[in-house]
Amino acid sequence: MKYKIIIEYDGTNYLGWQKQVDRPLKAIEDILQNAIFKLTTEKVKINCCGRTDSGVHALGQVADFDLKKQFQPFRILMGLNYFLSEEQISILSCHFENSSFHSRYSAKQRHYQYLILNRRAPPAINKNRVFHMPTKLNIAKMQEGANYLIGQHDFSSFRDAKCQAGHAVRSLSKINLSQDNEMIKVDISAKSFLHHMVRNIIGTLVLVGQEKITPQNIDKILKAKNRVCSGPNAPACGLYFLGADY
Amino acid sequence: MKYKIIIEYDGTNYLGWQKQVDRPLKAIEDILQNAIFKLTTEKVKINCCGRTDSGVHALGQVADFDLKKQFQPFRILMGLNYFLSEEQISILSCHFENSSFHSRYSAKQRHYQYLILNRRAPPAINKNRVFHMPTKLNIAKMQEGANYLIGQHDFSSFRDAKCQAGHAVRSLSKINLSQDNEMIKVDISAKSFLHHMVRNIIGTLVLVGQEKITPQNIDKILKAKNRVCSGPNAPACGLYFLGADY
Repeated sequence: MKYKIIIEYDGTNYLGWQKQVDRPLKAIEDILQNAIFKLTTEKVKINCCGRTDSGVHALGQVADFDLKKQFQPFRILMGLNYFLSEEQISILSCHFENSSFHSRYSAKQRHYQYLILNRRAPPAINKNRVFHMPTKLNIAKMQEGANYLIGQHDFSSFRDAKCQAGHAVRSLSKINLSQDNEMIKVDISAKSFLHHMVRNIIGTLVLVGQEKITPQNIDKILKAKNRVCSGPNAPACGLYFLGADY
Repeated sequence: MKYKIIIEYDGTNYLGWQKQVDRPLKAIEDILQNAIFKLTTEKVKINCCGRTDSGVHALGQVADFDLKKQFQPFRILMGLNYFLSEEQISILSCHFENSSFHSRYSAKQRHYQYLILNRRAPPAINKNRVFHMPTKLNIAKMQEGANYLIGQHDFSSFRDAKCQAGHAVRSLSKINLSQDNEMIKVDISAKSFLHHMVRNIIGTLVLVGQEKITPQNIDKILKAKNRVCSGPNAPACGLYFLGADY
């Protein structure tokens, strides 16, 4: 039987989704595998929709795995949360899925949100959960720049050197900025993203918000297809994987 | 010169506002005194509006202190935040105040918010920052019960045994419940509160939300003027000191 789970986590104290060699922090994948083993005595392979980096959070990460024995999804939900109680990882739901379902390859749209705390004082309550920008950002200009990125483009300028994708053409369906008091929210959706693509886009849009570059520069940077043209990679702590459509 | 500061903090890893003997955690008051000393070389006495318990958070705690030397408030703001950078405490603003101002005694209204995460799955992102209630609460009935508390009453039923106030008569000006998806917010305001009064009220209203007692029982509990009649003290981690009016 295949099970699909939705997961919330605070990425601060984890290595990210995937295990890597010789690192002191634990990977979320490992912790989940371990919890599933404790509950079911089965060692499973977990597929995941968005393999988040260390420090990146999730409100609706999607994962799936197969079990030989059959368990009621509600028992999986309650049992995993019991074994995860010391972690900052929570299983929000668990359902049966078709055997053809794959969290990564079946996803039609992925949704991310990036949070920028735009005020003088550093965050206390949301420490490690927002990107702190002490100087006032011009959100209207950031949105104007962001609009150049909507649609299908070669996103080489916003792609990390270590990105392993075959090509850099991606189709951005949404990039919306909104403000809730001191918090700027950037909602960004696409079928798939390149490595560090969201954070590179945010880092470049922040330059627009600071009026260091113009909104029109975003179009030029995009067309340059060269990572050296874009801005810095925005910090992991502001990024949230919201969820995916299938 | 007297300075008034507004403070945000995550109370999770602190002893609360005030120092207590023989406890391993640090008090927020001590950490602030220490940061002020590092910045100004003056050892100050800090007055505070709401002396929160361990685990209680603040979005707008108010405090004041006197300095012999004169500093620009902006320098105090930036300097204190520099020395607090390893903490989950942030100074939101700093202004000069009249010498007669007292954060505690001059306050006309105090505003608190209590957050209840009402869903099956435990919190991951907001671990230690919400009270988790896995079973569905009836918010309409909670509001109906809460309405009995508005106005001036003897709140002995919602007063902690260790409360040192001279009498238990308090005047509750607001208690509003609202819901934002899975989060229930309780906004509660009064000129002043008894020790554990907000958390005892919330703990009792949760019994109404669970339909273990009726909204009308809140009136009976209030009139009994006896702590044994009310519900359990709700956890500290759901409580936020929002701010005060002067």
